[in-house]
Amino acid sequence: MTSPEAREEAVLEAVRERRERVNEAIPEELPIQRPERLYEASRYLLDAGGKRLRPTVLLTVAESLLDVEPLSTDYREFPTLNGNRIDIMDAAVSVEVIQSFTLIHDDIMDDDDLRRGVPAVHKEYDLETAILAGDTLYSKAFEIMLETGAKPDRSVEALNVLATTCTKICEGQSLDVTFEERADVSPEEYLEMVEQKTAVLYAASACLPAILLGADEETIDALYGYGLDIGRAFQIQDDVLDLTVPSEQLGKQRGSDLVENKQTLITVHARDQGVDVDNLVDTNDVEAVTEAEIDDAVAELQAAGSIEYANTTAQDLVAQGKERLEVLPDNEARELLRDIADYLIERGY
Amino acid sequence: MTSPEAREEAVLEAVRERRERVNEAIPEELPIQRPERLYEASRYLLDAGGKRLRPTVLLTVAESLLDVEPLSTDYREFPTLNGNRIDIMDAAVSVEVIQSFTLIHDDIMDDDDLRRGVPAVHKEYDLETAILAGDTLYSKAFEIMLETGAKPDRSVEALNVLATTCTKICEGQSLDVTFEERADVSPEEYLEMVEQKTAVLYAASACLPAILLGADEETIDALYGYGLDIGRAFQIQDDVLDLTVPSEQLGKQRGSDLVENKQTLITVHARDQGVDVDNLVDTNDVEAVTEAEIDDAVAELQAAGSIEYANTTAQDLVAQGKERLEVLPDNEARELLRDIADYLIERGY
Repeated sequence: MTSPEAREEAVLEAVRERRERVNEAIPEELPIQRPERLYEASRYLLDAGGKRLRPTVLLTVAESLLDVEPLSTDYREFPTLNGNRIDIMDAAVSVEVIQSFTLIHDDIMDDDDLRRGVPAVHKEYDLETAILAGDTLYSKAFEIMLETGAKPDRSVEALNVLATTCTKICEGQSLDVTFEERADVSPEEYLEMVEQKTAVLYAASACLPAILLGADEETIDALYGYGLDIGRAFQIQDDVLDLTVPSEQLGKQRGSDLVENKQTLITVHARDQGVDVDNLVDTNDVEAVTEAEIDDAVAELQAAGSIEYANTTAQDLVAQGKERLEVLPDNEARELLRDIADYLIERGY
Repeated sequence: MTSPEAREEAVLEAVRERRERVNEAIPEELPIQRPERLYEASRYLLDAGGKRLRPTVLLTVAESLLDVEPLSTDYREFPTLNGNRIDIMDAAVSVEVIQSFTLIHDDIMDDDDLRRGVPAVHKEYDLETAILAGDTLYSKAFEIMLETGAKPDRSVEALNVLATTCTKICEGQSLDVTFEERADVSPEEYLEMVEQKTAVLYAASACLPAILLGADEETIDALYGYGLDIGRAFQIQDDVLDLTVPSEQLGKQRGSDLVENKQTLITVHARDQGVDVDNLVDTNDVEAVTEAEIDDAVAELQAAGSIEYANTTAQDLVAQGKERLEVLPDNEARELLRDIADYLIERGY
């Protein structure tokens, strides 16, 4: 057994190396063309950064399935289980493009100013351009997914996963909005919302390579489940980090979810325990809240066992997700997928 | 030869009959489900009306290609050139759903209050819901197009046409926005914009049945061309009608394009002829403009030959589009497609 620190370093290195290749592929798939302003706006967030976790999961699943050594094989001419070769990088770029489209539209809906340390697209450009940039990325993601060269029946299945995933993301985002006005959201409802809003894109990222490379139904389903599990754990961990990581490190005000009355698994649990969640923090203004107020609120949530509950739930999901990986051949890439699952809840920010 | 009036009546009747079937299919493909508010908003404009011209073109091309009598065959189990049967209604609903998605997002971008006689979705609901409703229709259109039961290679081609069509619509909308700030748009540039913003969805509607039913490349290309031609003619006619039809009949202020400094083929031509287009109407407020001001502006455009130029261009496009239909078998459905082309520029509103 290697140490947790060594495993985390290995994950970060693996993510870094795939990120570089994904970053090379993005301008190839989405060149700045006429009308330039539209394509510049479409690329703005993609170029601003991002860990590329979803493409990393996708590419690593492909490597495990085909039992090739990580990073040893050209993603643009990747072997399949049927003998032909396909461009699996296209699939990886496609899910990242979908992710970017949802961020652009989400920022408009939440009227958020900043994303990845740069202005949101509707702030850097304007509302009109941001809506259009998101819509352009949406169809481009489908175009790119159609270019892998996979067998037509597999492409059809992949497109179907991509389309239903986008529908679920919209449904999840819509539920999230209605939850903000409700004080009786159950942990089950919250987890369902997180599944639709966040986890389905991890699920798609994990199962798409299996579909495109010709794997069987059992493998596809297990990988979809892995993605759902780690995607939910990822979101729960995000909610925990919002309360526990210093503002400077977080890049935004610690406890902003509480201030803005956003539902999280933590607040949903605390309310169940009788905590007066809506009055944990007096102000609704992230500019006005003090660190002491946040400290008090966190102490109360800790006393109610809510942070512990969220941590345990995330850990259980990760354990379950890792079990599902048994469907893959035992190899280095599979080990990396296990480590990625751990990383999602062990990461500090 | 039947009279123009009789032919127009035949077109309207054919559109009406297909519209009824499309209107039955829409709630089947897009049921109101959880989260209800999202799906209600998604259906809002679809339920508010619309001529269903694009689905009518699609279904009529299918009937001509398979040489069946119009309306004699179940669109849900439509014969193909390969012997199997497919659900061609799914394709018809899919293009109408794309059309509806673009209207919802366009109304946000233009901050228009009314559409089809009802409030725009972002007015009836809110900005957030309208963005999400459009995004939901976007992915649903792809899901529905994947349900026709066509052979996988044909489905892949159909999906590719749908995705590239959406990309072009975004590009066209983006060009339209930049044109509003330019005084040197040429007629060619204007027609390119119209092609991308409006005509490509007619082109998709015309060629998609050929793709799904198994027609050859030549037929697919010719039908795409027919759709592009009549789609451009349709938009040019819309621009003419904005100037020539009384406000009550138009459902909005006559000449609103002029007041809002929107580029049309008419203004682009007039500017080429030395008309001071930007000062044809003094106000930028559609509420403040008088009928007399619009009358004077129209007279000036008429003197410059610009309305005549637009009419001639539209007529030429329709003639060219009708010629492309020679690729289809000579039957009643093909005659209807010719009449639809004529109707698009002869219609009064």
